[in-house]
Amino acid sequence: MENQDTPVPVPIPEDQPKAAEQVIDPWNVSGAVGEDGKIKPIDYVKLVEQFGTKLIDDALLERFERVTGQKPHRFLRRQIAFSHRDLEVILDKYEKKEPFFIYTGRGPSSTSMHIGHIVPFELTRYLSDVFQAPLVIMLTDDEKYLIGKNDLDVEEYEQFARENAKDIIACGFDIDRTFIFSDYGYMGGDLYRNITRISKRITRATADSCFGFTSSTNIGKVHFAAIQAATSFGSSFPEIFGTNKAQTAKIPCLIPCAIDQDPYFRLTRDVASQLNYSKPSLIHARFLDALQGPGSKMSASIDSSSIKLTDTPKQILKKITTYAFSGGKETLEEHREKGGNPDIDVPYNYLKFFLEDDDELAQIYTDYKKGTMLTSEIKKKCADVVSTFVTDFQGRRAKITDEMLDEFMKPRALKVHGQLSNTILPIVGGKSTAGKVPVADPNSKAQAKKAEKLRQIEAKKAQKAKEKEEKEKAAKGHIVTSTESAPMPNPDNSTS
Amino acid sequence: MENQDTPVPVPIPEDQPKAAEQVIDPWNVSGAVGEDGKIKPIDYVKLVEQFGTKLIDDALLERFERVTGQKPHRFLRRQIAFSHRDLEVILDKYEKKEPFFIYTGRGPSSTSMHIGHIVPFELTRYLSDVFQAPLVIMLTDDEKYLIGKNDLDVEEYEQFARENAKDIIACGFDIDRTFIFSDYGYMGGDLYRNITRISKRITRATADSCFGFTSSTNIGKVHFAAIQAATSFGSSFPEIFGTNKAQTAKIPCLIPCAIDQDPYFRLTRDVASQLNYSKPSLIHARFLDALQGPGSKMSASIDSSSIKLTDTPKQILKKITTYAFSGGKETLEEHREKGGNPDIDVPYNYLKFFLEDDDELAQIYTDYKKGTMLTSEIKKKCADVVSTFVTDFQGRRAKITDEMLDEFMKPRALKVHGQLSNTILPIVGGKSTAGKVPVADPNSKAQAKKAEKLRQIEAKKAQKAKEKEEKEKAAKGHIVTSTESAPMPNPDNSTS
Repeated sequence: MENQDTPVPVPIPEDQPKAAEQVIDPWNVSGAVGEDGKIKPIDYVKLVEQFGTKLIDDALLERFERVTGQKPHRFLRRQIAFSHRDLEVILDKYEKKEPFFIYTGRGPSSTSMHIGHIVPFELTRYLSDVFQAPLVIMLTDDEKYLIGKNDLDVEEYEQFARENAKDIIACGFDIDRTFIFSDYGYMGGDLYRNITRISKRITRATADSCFGFTSSTNIGKVHFAAIQAATSFGSSFPEIFGTNKAQTAKIPCLIPCAIDQDPYFRLTRDVASQLNYSKPSLIHARFLDALQGPGSKMSASIDSSSIKLTDTPKQILKKITTYAFSGGKETLEEHREKGGNPDIDVPYNYLKFFLEDDDELAQIYTDYKKGTMLTSEIKKKCADVVSTFVTDFQGRRAKITDEMLDEFMKPRALKVHGQLSNTILPIVGGKSTAGKVPVADPNSKAQAKKAEKLRQIEAKKAQKAKEKEEKEKAAKGHIVTSTESAPMPNPDNSTS
Repeated sequence: MENQDTPVPVPIPEDQPKAAEQVIDPWNVSGAVGEDGKIKPIDYVKLVEQFGTKLIDDALLERFERVTGQKPHRFLRRQIAFSHRDLEVILDKYEKKEPFFIYTGRGPSSTSMHIGHIVPFELTRYLSDVFQAPLVIMLTDDEKYLIGKNDLDVEEYEQFARENAKDIIACGFDIDRTFIFSDYGYMGGDLYRNITRISKRITRATADSCFGFTSSTNIGKVHFAAIQAATSFGSSFPEIFGTNKAQTAKIPCLIPCAIDQDPYFRLTRDVASQLNYSKPSLIHARFLDALQGPGSKMSASIDSSSIKLTDTPKQILKKITTYAFSGGKETLEEHREKGGNPDIDVPYNYLKFFLEDDDELAQIYTDYKKGTMLTSEIKKKCADVVSTFVTDFQGRRAKITDEMLDEFMKPRALKVHGQLSNTILPIVGGKSTAGKVPVADPNSKAQAKKAEKLRQIEAKKAQKAKEKEEKEKAAKGHIVTSTESAPMPNPDNSTS
């Protein structure tokens, strides 16, 4: 995952036309550039059309509130979490008390996280509290190593993963319901088995068209989509859900993520159909703009673009005062007379993310637009609200010990609704088979029978091949069968 | 690994020119096809030129015998193991009593192995006995699943791996010195860390040019080269060699394999240089021809092409009598008069592989060429020798229990020269650091300091980025840095 972490602004080569389309993919986020060379805000409605997702509308939010009995999070109320795929499916499951889980992640590219990184995790924390569902958080230290342009080695990304995990825990996740893992730490077993089931079903052409890979892309990055996809399936986590794959593959998952991650899961949903696994549902969040304004997102590597989770209130006030793009007018007189533009104003935008009170937010909008609220005033208000958020975070972060982290990262059954997660399983094939269906463990002696059966099947196949061969030999001499894998159907991403 | 397991003969489409070049790669083995539509024997000398390897010559064999004090195996004496890369490096290490290990493998595509599959393992057993070096045997159940065209699932390939491992053990491997693993069983940890170090350094273009991948190749197969490569490095096996990566990455490895696997290790050697890891050395074996003759190799899936390890002496005699391509003359009279051609004669060829006595083999060659030995006689002799080999094998195979298999497959320190393999380590940087250098374990608290250091480095980087950004902003507005991974240098395979 790469949420909220690519460097910010867009290059405008001097010798080329300045206008450019917006680019949103897992490695790039930038708004369109107009004829005037200025970056436009990201057009999220256009993204929904391009990606084939659905907007989260009032009807869906009403149903969400009715089903869960909880007021939608301010991110949902304010279209910050603005788009989804199959959220209805998850609400259906919740209504019927059928199991599902939540999956989100982060690419640990450095130890320093900023408040933009927190957005998907705050949304995830809220959803996991509302739904009381098991939660897995994937730290893609392998991906970050594979795309890293520096000379940091693998172990350094693993260390970033641990530091980031502490920040994530400080968002308030419940240790009973949450499993955090890093790819380097957890790779293998059933996760790896699913990774190959997925990678077998994605052709190079599909990966290219989905992610824009070229001949200079490294083969680790080409392959990575299968890793990010595999976490979407309950059968990747035997410690959490048990080893009955017929059931665990049918536990659906809800993925709260930033919109740039959607290409991974479009592909995942196509492959899920082929594997007869549950398709993951998604909720997509907008990016928190960089201080420099709409059309970009915060970057941890450009200090002036972001509010870091380690910043002091003084630093936060200074950054917002100095760098935050303003929708206010040039002069005090003009502002008083004509009013400001809250829609493009970064401080107002941050208040939308972090100020809980809807009425107060509406009042600020009105006052700023009328000009009765000044730029200096909205910046001060924003700094106060963000500082409170960050200070609260820092208080929780200071209490996270290595022992707590180890406990969060231990593969284990989670506790939900007072029950162990490996005892709450979907009903497959008409009746619940929890703990009843034997698992194909290739190391068990019980598999000897199966091996014998396979041997017989092969003997038959060999016999058939022999007959075929002799027939054809008689007709025209030697024939061949290539062992090159069959090209897989190219999934139609636009329809998923 | 795909040794000795692709179906045999070459397709000759009716509507195309019949002549074709020989094709040898990890998935295809076929001799050239002449203008007459006939398959020619594989031209191994041409392969050596194409691949850039070296022939194993008399001087090298003399040195081998001098250094090891052992008579070279009949495969080495008869140019069956005919080619190598850096075998001298391994002999140097052996002379200096410096550590190295041996690596070979198999792609478990079915439960039924044939005598052709045994060739690299017989060579490996001999080398591991002569060198008394640790040995790792990789069963690429993941590869076989990824390229499989049937609808077998992952667990079935894992079962094939276990069945094949029993056959391999029956070749006579020493449990003290041998670790057998399947990719599904062992994937993760330091093996996976090395896999990403390798995959980061192979571009899609390099993989394409090395393996002939196309846009319809699945991304699992595209990525697999990194997996097969990672086993070449001691640092992938902390249980065997310990966790001091500075040392374990410098333990060289010798890979006995069939020649079709060379492309993987050409790539591996290039990447090893970039990683400052030891380059693997190789010994390449020829293929055991299919019964149908030179220019093909045995296939387990075409019964009439191969002698199975489960065949009875009666079946073996029948197969050789019925199917074995003969270099004898059409009639008894003509054969007596003009003599046979042992060079293209399959029974003679098999005797070269399986008859130990050099003088007896030479006598057979002479007698058959003169016509004093008849086709029926050489076929009978061949069937006897092969039957003895197979019957002996079956006797050992019957004694392999699941418990023994589990012991071979347990990650552990091996015993060589009466010592544990994790105590025999190369001297790195002037002095042996066995057990002294702390390992970067990201889970240890001692890493906290390192994290702090990293944090400081990043803070500096951020500061620099900030300065750069502000400077450039002042000059021309926003700039961007792409996080797309840098294209890796395209290794020049021809020089490795």
